[in-house]
Amino acid sequence: MPAAASRPVCVLGLGLIGGSLLRRLADSGISAFGYNRSAATVDAAVADGYAASSDLDVTLRRAAEADATVVLATPFTALEAMVVAVRDTAPDCLLTDVVSVKEEVAELIERVHPNGRYVGGHPMAGTAQSGWAATDPTLFEGAMWMVTTHDDTDADDWLTVARMARAAGAYVVPAANDAHDRAAAAISHNPHLTAAVTATVGAGESDLALRLAAGSFRDGTRVAGTAPELQRAMLEANSIALLNTLSETIDRLIAARNALRDTGSVAVLVDDGHRARAKYEAIAGAEPEPITDVRIGDPDWQQELRRQAHRARVWMA
Amino acid sequence: MPAAASRPVCVLGLGLIGGSLLRRLADSGISAFGYNRSAATVDAAVADGYAASSDLDVTLRRAAEADATVVLATPFTALEAMVVAVRDTAPDCLLTDVVSVKEEVAELIERVHPNGRYVGGHPMAGTAQSGWAATDPTLFEGAMWMVTTHDDTDADDWLTVARMARAAGAYVVPAANDAHDRAAAAISHNPHLTAAVTATVGAGESDLALRLAAGSFRDGTRVAGTAPELQRAMLEANSIALLNTLSETIDRLIAARNALRDTGSVAVLVDDGHRARAKYEAIAGAEPEPITDVRIGDPDWQQELRRQAHRARVWMA
Repeated sequence: MPAAASRPVCVLGLGLIGGSLLRRLADSGISAFGYNRSAATVDAAVADGYAASSDLDVTLRRAAEADATVVLATPFTALEAMVVAVRDTAPDCLLTDVVSVKEEVAELIERVHPNGRYVGGHPMAGTAQSGWAATDPTLFEGAMWMVTTHDDTDADDWLTVARMARAAGAYVVPAANDAHDRAAAAISHNPHLTAAVTATVGAGESDLALRLAAGSFRDGTRVAGTAPELQRAMLEANSIALLNTLSETIDRLIAARNALRDTGSVAVLVDDGHRARAKYEAIAGAEPEPITDVRIGDPDWQQELRRQAHRARVWMA
Repeated sequence: MPAAASRPVCVLGLGLIGGSLLRRLADSGISAFGYNRSAATVDAAVADGYAASSDLDVTLRRAAEADATVVLATPFTALEAMVVAVRDTAPDCLLTDVVSVKEEVAELIERVHPNGRYVGGHPMAGTAQSGWAATDPTLFEGAMWMVTTHDDTDADDWLTVARMARAAGAYVVPAANDAHDRAAAAISHNPHLTAAVTATVGAGESDLALRLAAGSFRDGTRVAGTAPELQRAMLEANSIALLNTLSETIDRLIAARNALRDTGSVAVLVDDGHRARAKYEAIAGAEPEPITDVRIGDPDWQQELRRQAHRARVWMA
């Protein structure tokens, strides 16, 4: 592991993502400590042997002294208060986050802490569970961790965040914030809405229907079981991109309904879906191909990373 | 196991469902034999120690001699030829089937073999795989197996089919054909379309999006990977019920899009979906409650079975 991976990390928010990150980094011997508003969560973390506090000020002073990377891992609704606190107490610390949308977070930080150092992040990992009890140090193993890669992104800061993601077990996917948000709408937020509607229509038919439900319903509606407030926070923060994917979803379903009504066939949608699933399986089923021949900091390194990531490659140096 | 469970069974079609059924029944010591058009499938079944033939006439003569229950397990497109052959060679045998729609099958049998004895069935089990190599004698373990239960259903024939389903490891869900088809549209066929559209929209965004795809996309699109011709045969045979659920799906998604656009909120759909998923988990997660106090053959036994099945109970005597 490169030396930079052992820089201290301060995690604000010890839910599923933040708590799992704290555990994984600390288990790897990295100096990692966390804050959570709830004393019960902090007690549980401390009882499990981790450094955690419910005192935000104390936590951020420690971050400032250690020059720690501060990871924003609270729900989006609590984010602004966290950034204000960082600005006031640990203004020179590098900031990153794990929020599922990137443009809104970047705008918030630019507005609240315009001189802050910030490189966004989003680990593509999670379960329908939440809270410290659900944390798992292996949560990020082999997962994709998007890291903001803009033309003005600082090379050292990028490497610090990317190496932290690698230390957590993840592959790094460099992307611009807007491209990430469109992708997240397409492969995460829209699937939450299709799962919700599939569940609703199925349960609306009868208890007999739910009794007969098998694998296609179970898997297709799983994420509808995620806590509604978490789903809403995630989806509504990405409303522009989600409106686009949702509209495309509706248009394709209307075309399928018209074809079924007029010709008795669902061939177009079923064939399109089968091809799309096969493409996904080809990408997700293979060992990730590494991004090659890019030295972080060389001219145009950010563009070259993005270009290769658009061909589904990952950074794993 | 009641004595009647050991009546011989003849399975026509040794794909995932038919092949798994043959294996399970034979492994349980029940006299079970099968037919498949493909010599390669028959060779594979025989090599695995099962009685199978690619000669339909020989197979049906054996069924007639043994008074076997004949299980129609071919794709829907091959069903009529099978029913004609049964009518001509084994007209007195009790017929059942495993097709995912029930009204069309019942009409076909009524038309082709009007004097035949028939009690429909549909095991709610499957995978995205198909063919003999995918067969699994535990496929039906704990699964729900719908058995047609109309007011004119013969008690002995119903018991024969229900006990075969029980011998395969499944619970029996009594239902009328039209109620089954509406339920299947809601919890199986519609989920195939929502999975297909979710996959299509996700893959259409970019390879970066597919690279970032995680659990919600993987699970929500799984059934889109089923062979398109199998999906089409299943969905298009249930087009009336599917048109209804698909239209409701579209209406709910349009309402969600309008709410997101006008108020920034996806609360209604997310909350509905969460409630629906919780209801499903409550039914699917608990041990099935048994249908009680009904003796098959007593007056109005069919109505009473259906009434209790509508409260998500199963027959397991």
